Amino acid sequence: MKTSRSTIFGGALTLCASLIFVAAAHAQTDPLPSWNEGPAKQAIRDFVRVTTDKANLRYVPPPQRIATFDQDGTLWVEQPLYTQVAFAIDRVKALAPKHPEWKTRQPFKAILTGNRESLAGFSIQDFERVVAETHSGITIEEFHTVVKAWLATAKHPRFKRPYTELIYRPMLEVMRYLRVNGYKTYIVTGGGQEFVRVYAETVYGVPPEQVIGSAGKTKYEYSPAGKPVLVKLPEALLIDDQGGKPEGINLIIGRRPSAAFGNSTGDRQMLEYTGTGDGVRLMMLVLHDDAPREYAYGPARGLPDSKVGVFSQALFDEATKKGWTVISMKNDWKNIFAWEE
Amino acid sequence: MKTSRSTIFGGALTLCASLIFVAAAHAQTDPLPSWNEGPAKQAIRDFVRVTTDKANLRYVPPPQRIATFDQDGTLWVEQPLYTQVAFAIDRVKALAPKHPEWKTRQPFKAILTGNRESLAGFSIQDFERVVAETHSGITIEEFHTVVKAWLATAKHPRFKRPYTELIYRPMLEVMRYLRVNGYKTYIVTGGGQEFVRVYAETVYGVPPEQVIGSAGKTKYEYSPAGKPVLVKLPEALLIDDQGGKPEGINLIIGRRPSAAFGNSTGDRQMLEYTGTGDGVRLMMLVLHDDAPREYAYGPARGLPDSKVGVFSQALFDEATKKGWTVISMKNDWKNIFAWEE
Repeated sequence: MKTSRSTIFGGALTLCASLIFVAAAHAQTDPLPSWNEGPAKQAIRDFVRVTTDKANLRYVPPPQRIATFDQDGTLWVEQPLYTQVAFAIDRVKALAPKHPEWKTRQPFKAILTGNRESLAGFSIQDFERVVAETHSGITIEEFHTVVKAWLATAKHPRFKRPYTELIYRPMLEVMRYLRVNGYKTYIVTGGGQEFVRVYAETVYGVPPEQVIGSAGKTKYEYSPAGKPVLVKLPEALLIDDQGGKPEGINLIIGRRPSAAFGNSTGDRQMLEYTGTGDGVRLMMLVLHDDAPREYAYGPARGLPDSKVGVFSQALFDEATKKGWTVISMKNDWKNIFAWEE
Repeated sequence: MKTSRSTIFGGALTLCASLIFVAAAHAQTDPLPSWNEGPAKQAIRDFVRVTTDKANLRYVPPPQRIATFDQDGTLWVEQPLYTQVAFAIDRVKALAPKHPEWKTRQPFKAILTGNRESLAGFSIQDFERVVAETHSGITIEEFHTVVKAWLATAKHPRFKRPYTELIYRPMLEVMRYLRVNGYKTYIVTGGGQEFVRVYAETVYGVPPEQVIGSAGKTKYEYSPAGKPVLVKLPEALLIDDQGGKPEGINLIIGRRPSAAFGNSTGDRQMLEYTGTGDGVRLMMLVLHDDAPREYAYGPARGLPDSKVGVFSQALFDEATKKGWTVISMKNDWKNIFAWEE
């Protein structure tokens, strides 16, 4: 009986494989319709073709197909402030009545009295202090609820839309194209892991276990009602930026990515780490050179300076030298947002 | 054209689904052949049936199907010493010529002069010190090489076989059965994450990104030849035991498991955390009550006391009260190791 069972099963599978092949061939269309033809689009297509072709020496077996994406400035808008900074600012305002001491303590005082633009000069340390104090002392679930409520109402100052609509459509296409070809797509962000997990599955199709970000410690304890809960502590566990990106990738994935996408000096080490692996690798950097449709900042290539998402000339030169592909938002992207059409 | 393409594709998929269904029905055999009929085997089957049946109110959508497994004593033998302790002891001996100070410093002195059995009384702190000093100062890749070489030659003192052959066959069947039913299987171990990643894919079919364990910090830096490397530091990042298990699960997965398997008090919080979720959950504990075939230790149910993998009477009582299933190695497992047949 065993033999005949597996024969039936094997026959069905072969037939299915053929049918799916035929159907897929018919369904073939451009997987990257928001991209103009050019070296960036070509680099993505070549990478997928080579690494998924079993006959190619540089074939990558499916379990090793890992692609990592920075978030701020790579998958969504990061100007004039990182979205999570906007959230933290609103959180300080919401929590202020319970924290009278903030009125006289920096950087809280600046947030409570100033306007958003004056806060662009915040140092990383200022921001970490604000996040530590405003994102802790509650359970993971309570934090998710707070973020969800904020995302439902907060709007971007220029585009007047929810932040989760400010996703770059060309990048969503790349993520989908890679997934269809067996790649696991990870977000590797300097932003908060728990913050991004709230919307990553809905917005990017990236499940919580594929979100790597800056993370605080948690403590397993019991609520007054005796229910076990994970409480967010005000101490950092991982700062997922610069060298912290490869460290975070090793902690959570334990494999070197085959492809990595970023847009700023904070992504340099992730691209370098990715590129040091054997075989063919894809490293790409988004250059924001499109003020009319989005923003223009560098200072690479003489673009205006920025305090957020710096793309230095040194990074541009390194990309050129190492064969990393720079994506020009202006030239490579046919459209930027889903709602533009 | 678009409509006709999707019609062809849709038709092919429907036909495939039907063929696979028919073939699978024919291929139906016992997925748990190493398990005797009884409440434990029944609990596993019921859980899979209920959570994968779309018509059932307690259906679990595939992305949420997460099952976590402790390793030592749950997936493989942990007596007379945790395997990684045996590795660390051999590592101390191998590195001793470079560390003359160890001859007079505890716990290193005890390792260098004593026999393995006398070391069973090591405290967790002793073990952490040994791991910190012997598992650090090298790159992740170098560490993997050292572990691989050790696993290739080291043998278990009683079974005289490589440690990677001391895997419980019934548990491999459970992991496979869950995976076939859309569950992602994770290892959640108090042992070292990098240690377990070396063999988890080959031995358990669990890829590195699904291994959660105690983890040390790493530092992204450059080798003398200028190659970027991740160096293991002697500081702990996560102690993945007791409350650290839910904390590690949240850090790496970001979802509450639907099923959790353990065998000792170190797994209590993981089972409790799993059980606190909505819907149907499966919590199981392996009781080592089979001295002739493996080991017998508790002290639950009057079994001999143990310094490794304690299963207390309090844990047994909690399991009974909360409906967690205790697996009796003696009664529930038809065979224990793959090589027994």
